Amino acid sequence: MQRKILMTDCADEHGLIAKITGVCFKHQLNIIKNSEFVDNQQQRFFMRTELEGEFHEAQLLADLEQVLPPKNQMRLIDAGRKRVVVLVTKEAHCLGDLLMKAYYGALEVDIAAVIGNYQTLAPLADKFDVPFHFVSHEGLTREEHEQALLQQLTPYQPDYVVLAKFMRVLTPGFVSHYPSRIINIHHSFLPAFIGANPYRQAWERGVKIIGATAHFVNDSLDEGPIIKQDVIPVDHSYSAEDMAKAGRDVEKSVLSRALALVVNNQVVVNGNKTLVFK
Amino acid sequence: MQRKILMTDCADEHGLIAKITGVCFKHQLNIIKNSEFVDNQQQRFFMRTELEGEFHEAQLLADLEQVLPPKNQMRLIDAGRKRVVVLVTKEAHCLGDLLMKAYYGALEVDIAAVIGNYQTLAPLADKFDVPFHFVSHEGLTREEHEQALLQQLTPYQPDYVVLAKFMRVLTPGFVSHYPSRIINIHHSFLPAFIGANPYRQAWERGVKIIGATAHFVNDSLDEGPIIKQDVIPVDHSYSAEDMAKAGRDVEKSVLSRALALVVNNQVVVNGNKTLVFK
Amino acid sequence: MQRKILMTDCADEHGLIAKITGVCFKHQLNIIKNSEFVDNQQQRFFMRTELEGEFHEAQLLADLEQVLPPKNQMRLIDAGRKRVVVLVTKEAHCLGDLLMKAYYGALEVDIAAVIGNYQTLAPLADKFDVPFHFVSHEGLTREEHEQALLQQLTPYQPDYVVLAKFMRVLTPGFVSHYPSRIINIHHSFLPAFIGANPYRQAWERGVKIIGATAHFVNDSLDEGPIIKQDVIPVDHSYSAEDMAKAGRDVEKSVLSRALALVVNNQVVVNGNKTLVFK
Amino acid sequence: MQRKILMTDCADEHGLIAKITGVCFKHQLNIIKNSEFVDNQQQRFFMRTELEGEFHEAQLLADLEQVLPPKNQMRLIDAGRKRVVVLVTKEAHCLGDLLMKAYYGALEVDIAAVIGNYQTLAPLADKFDVPFHFVSHEGLTREEHEQALLQQLTPYQPDYVVLAKFMRVLTPGFVSHYPSRIINIHHSFLPAFIGANPYRQAWERGVKIIGATAHFVNDSLDEGPIIKQDVIPVDHSYSAEDMAKAGRDVEKSVLSRALALVVNNQVVVNGNKTLVFK
Repeated sequence: MQRKILMTDCADEHGLIAKITGVCFKHQLNIIKNSEFVDNQQQRFFMRTELEGEFHEAQLLADLEQVLPPKNQMRLIDAGRKRVVVLVTKEAHCLGDLLMKAYYGALEVDIAAVIGNYQTLAPLADKFDVPFHFVSHEGLTREEHEQALLQQLTPYQPDYVVLAKFMRVLTPGFVSHYPSRIINIHHSFLPAFIGANPYRQAWERGVKIIGATAHFVNDSLDEGPIIKQDVIPVDHSYSAEDMAKAGRDVEKSVLSRALALVVNNQVVVNGNKTLVFK
Repeated sequence: MQRKILMTDCADEHGLIAKITGVCFKHQLNIIKNSEFVDNQQQRFFMRTELEGEFHEAQLLADLEQVLPPKNQMRLIDAGRKRVVVLVTKEAHCLGDLLMKAYYGALEVDIAAVIGNYQTLAPLADKFDVPFHFVSHEGLTREEHEQALLQQLTPYQPDYVVLAKFMRVLTPGFVSHYPSRIINIHHSFLPAFIGANPYRQAWERGVKIIGATAHFVNDSLDEGPIIKQDVIPVDHSYSAEDMAKAGRDVEKSVLSRALALVVNNQVVVNGNKTLVFK
Repeated sequence: MQRKILMTDCADEHGLIAKITGVCFKHQLNIIKNSEFVDNQQQRFFMRTELEGEFHEAQLLADLEQVLPPKNQMRLIDAGRKRVVVLVTKEAHCLGDLLMKAYYGALEVDIAAVIGNYQTLAPLADKFDVPFHFVSHEGLTREEHEQALLQQLTPYQPDYVVLAKFMRVLTPGFVSHYPSRIINIHHSFLPAFIGANPYRQAWERGVKIIGATAHFVNDSLDEGPIIKQDVIPVDHSYSAEDMAKAGRDVEKSVLSRALALVVNNQVVVNGNKTLVFK
Repeated sequence: MQRKILMTDCADEHGLIAKITGVCFKHQLNIIKNSEFVDNQQQRFFMRTELEGEFHEAQLLADLEQVLPPKNQMRLIDAGRKRVVVLVTKEAHCLGDLLMKAYYGALEVDIAAVIGNYQTLAPLADKFDVPFHFVSHEGLTREEHEQALLQQLTPYQPDYVVLAKFMRVLTPGFVSHYPSRIINIHHSFLPAFIGANPYRQAWERGVKIIGATAHFVNDSLDEGPIIKQDVIPVDHSYSAEDMAKAGRDVEKSVLSRALALVVNNQVVVNGNKTLVFK
């Protein structure tokens, strides 16, 4: 008995649910959970089907291909643990939460390595016996630094790269190695306060709520598809530093909940947005 | 082109999604939205299928009957406005919100009448040209009062009866006329503070959050299937009266959101719980 | 026995709480609630003191003047109902909530009049016996329209002007008549989605949370001091219209809670921010 | 320059704020933050005054004694780190969060030791170089086990004892050693689901929100003064195990926020309730 996720993404047409679930039934696969969404503007159909049973994968995919419209993007994904590499700078809270949750089993991930452009967090990775690679950006061009990062990153063959308060902007060249597979936490409620020092911006604007946003990284800074957001209330008594301190809890929580959704194969990228299937 | 909701509730078995959506496809009905849930403990399958097209209802139901297990509870429901009667005592906020939302189109209901055991809210119903019936409980036994209520209620043939801070306990005899069709708002986060004066109970216990619960009414006071709950923070500076005042907003909001879910046919009763399909 | 609020706003120096509360004690005024805040960046002291007793106002203010630094901005405000005029366009939900809450006593305001640039909401104001003035902007310059608005507004001598989804930008000339006394509800979580059609902007960006912001109006559109914000979760299944519909509840709730804070004299403007005393 | 917190708790009478802040001013102490509360039912006055300056403590206390009513409970507390000992059973998430937050400076505590009635969490304490003491309850009476716990606990002289999912009921005898100094996390929104297996109780009742409660421990199980509560939404698709898993995040967050409030001297016990000063 195996468990796999069938992700369908194709042009919309009548009868798709019946056809796809019909093929699954023919293969004697049990549907644990089925969720679909039609993007009416793009006339596009998305479905996530959690299947259990004995898989004859080549035949299953061939049978599905028969009933799906051409140019569909169908994928059959193994349910199970994913391998991630975490990129960090100096702040410990997001990395700490990921390490701790992986440790006690709240996240279905193996943290294969941590890479930092400072050495600050090496002792934290050590505590959990995770290799830490120090890749300083000093004296390097952006491209050279990214090459050095990739050199460390590539051998781990990560399913996902997690930016856990990695305070460097990545170029499209770097991002193209992991399309829709790099997850960033931005310390504001995007699209408010894009860019540097969002808590100071929030403090200067006098907002009454602050937030955090986890998103896939694409070519434009802070503009990739949003996966998860959350907020906490603040008031006039908070300095910018108080906001930053209070924000850490929501940052770490949003990042690890976003990662959980991604590794559970609940998130589909649809243009510059995500679909998040419950 | 019509829109209807097919609600399936039957013993679980393999292939149900494929079979049911297959029948719908054969009938050239378009599935707008499909949501299912399996109660593994009860081995029971639930599905809500929002359909659009031309319905040949007798044939559709017959075809579905062919593919469903015996003793299924299948219903085909017209999407569209529902008729409700609201029972009240003296507090205006819940009734006011329902009337206002029905007025500006935020709730797909026709409020056919308001019945009060006091006359306090007659002027409010009048503002919205909704008939108000005063049915005092004074000098009557509980059974006599309920008979008097039913006499006013029955002719309106309501789809749902809404208890909008109706401060009387209803007997099983009354409830049996509207099984899973009476919606109550309880001014606490059930099952905390069952019974009388929950805000005073909350104040005495020193809780830091208060809430409200909308539920279907069954034979036991405050113990019917919960539809919706929400909470708001409070602190030590709140008196029991402050809590009651602050709680009004969450009461009215929970009640009207619960009613919206119910009239949109998103709520299914499953034993003493509800399934709420998104 | 009267109740008044002493609002102190002055340069910070040592001993201010002792000096001010000392004067109040000398006057045999009981302090019901006292809240202070020091803006360390501006070196400015703010205090809100809720007083009860017999007021000898001229003497009290003279005695306070003695102990406060020069150029202080001290005000003694009567606790009690405030008079407001509401400006609207076509959407009913915010006006409806204000009228309903004023009606059942959840807001300490008298709604003296409603002014609309369309006639749509006249019947709603009528239900609550509130005068409605139709001041169309058609065929008028912005200045002419604002003159016409002021002509209706001024005679009511409102303490506050509430923009309850009034879809017109006000000029600094208009705003200068009611400095820090015009309250607007913006249908986004500011500063995200400033300007027109924020729900469409939110939908296009694919956010997972939407919000509303109540703020005082100053010379720059959507940039005045924020009083209150709140948010609700959304997901990929929401169209821009669904977001707008879901947002109505949070808009009306944020506006009426902001107005409650303002009329309870809990809000102080400090530059482009507000202090909100609990 | 030192920072201390003056906590006043006495019978209410006129002029207390003026008198107390007057003494502070005479001592040339700067008030960083002042918060008061009057419990009108008990006629009791509470004030938290955060002071900065040079303290002549004996004289300050003597001068305050002069102006306060008899039988007052006044305390002058050093701001600064507190020493805690954490009691655990097998679940890692609460202990993990406390260790991590102490590690990166988000909690002003020194975790002096961890004591477990199972050995499960010894490796986790080890990672952070915190001594772990295994005190099994097997083969011991409740009193014997508590004696064994005290033997390990007492030498650390903890300011606070934190029960981070310690699944044993403590007797009044044990509790009396640390009055209002033992903090427990209960995995429900108290007073709902007191006692064993609250997530199963919540699942059986079909609630739509689950929560967690941090409270001081007194003589009655789950009935001590509540410090902090928070909730998360759930739906019909959650099993009792899913609720338990989802609840871990809110448990750890509520416990560490409650502990932060306590160690920042923001929490005062008032009968069976707490005052939490912002």
